[in-house]
Amino acid sequence: MGSVRLRSAFFLFAVFPLLPVTMRGVQTEDPQLHTASPTELGVIKVLLAQEKAWNNGDIDSFAKGYKNSPETLFLSGTINRGFEGMVTNYHREYPTRAAMGTLAFSDLEVHPLDERFAVCVGKYHLDRAKKAGGPAEGLFSLVMEKTEHGWKIVVDHTT
Amino acid sequence: MGSVRLRSAFFLFAVFPLLPVTMRGVQTEDPQLHTASPTELGVIKVLLAQEKAWNNGDIDSFAKGYKNSPETLFLSGTINRGFEGMVTNYHREYPTRAAMGTLAFSDLEVHPLDERFAVCVGKYHLDRAKKAGGPAEGLFSLVMEKTEHGWKIVVDHTT
Repeated sequence: MGSVRLRSAFFLFAVFPLLPVTMRGVQTEDPQLHTASPTELGVIKVLLAQEKAWNNGDIDSFAKGYKNSPETLFLSGTINRGFEGMVTNYHREYPTRAAMGTLAFSDLEVHPLDERFAVCVGKYHLDRAKKAGGPAEGLFSLVMEKTEHGWKIVVDHTT
Repeated sequence: MGSVRLRSAFFLFAVFPLLPVTMRGVQTEDPQLHTASPTELGVIKVLLAQEKAWNNGDIDSFAKGYKNSPETLFLSGTINRGFEGMVTNYHREYPTRAAMGTLAFSDLEVHPLDERFAVCVGKYHLDRAKKAGGPAEGLFSLVMEKTEHGWKIVVDHTT
C-alpha cells in the first residue's frame, strides 16, 4: 500500500510542470484553478521528498527537508531548537521501520510570503500498526526558506 | 489582578528602548543578553496591545493585531481563512467578559525572517472561572508581516 501511495505522489509531482493544477486558493473559500508557481513547486517538491524518504525508512533523508541550522524550530507541544537535536529526537521516537509506519501528507497549501520565504499548511496521516503505536494525524504549518540548497523548513509547528 | 498583569506588561514595554533586555537567543540553549531590535520591539508591541485589549473585553481591538485580509490564516485544530470570519468566531466563542477571562502571553520570542516578515513564538494562559469555561493554555506560532499599519499577524497557529 505504501508503494501505491508513493506512486500517486510521484504522479502528482510529475504533472505539476505540465498542466495547470487545482490548488486551494487563499482568496476565497472555493478551490480555484491556477498554474502552480515556482515557489509552490519548490515547496511541494520538498514535502513529497520527505514523504518518500519516511516511507523508505530513511529518517536522515527525511530530515534534509529541514534547514541544517541551530535556529531551526520544531514546535509540537513543546519548543525544540536546532536541527541536530531534532534529528536525534526523530531517531529516538521512531527507532524501527514499524514505528515509522506509512506517512501521507494531504491538503497541502503553499502561501508565498516573498521571494525567500513561504508558509506551507497541510495535514499528515501516519498509518501504523496498533502495536507499533497506532495511527496518528494532525495539522502542520511550516515556514520555509529558499536556501542555496533549495526550499528548507525553518519552523515546523505540528499538532 | 488583571490590572497588575497589565501594569507589568506596560513596564516591560517601557524599558525596552532604554535598556538591553534579556530575550531568549535562538543560537544557543542559554538565555542571552541583547538589545531588542526594531523588529522585536514592533512585534512585541502588537502582542502586548492584544493582551491589553483582550483584558479590557475589547475583541475588535484585539483583532487589530491581525492583518485585515481574506488571506489571514488561523489554525487551531482546523484551518480558518480570512480576517472577517475570524473576528466573528472570536465574538461567538467569547460572548461575555467572563468567557474572555484574563489573557497573559509569556515566553515570547521573535525570530526575524527578513525586513518584512518575522515569526513570533510564545505561550498563552487564559485565567478563567470554571463556570465560564475554565482556564486554558497553549503554545502559538505567528507569522507576522510589517505592513503600513505596523506589524500584523498573517498566520496564527495556536494549540
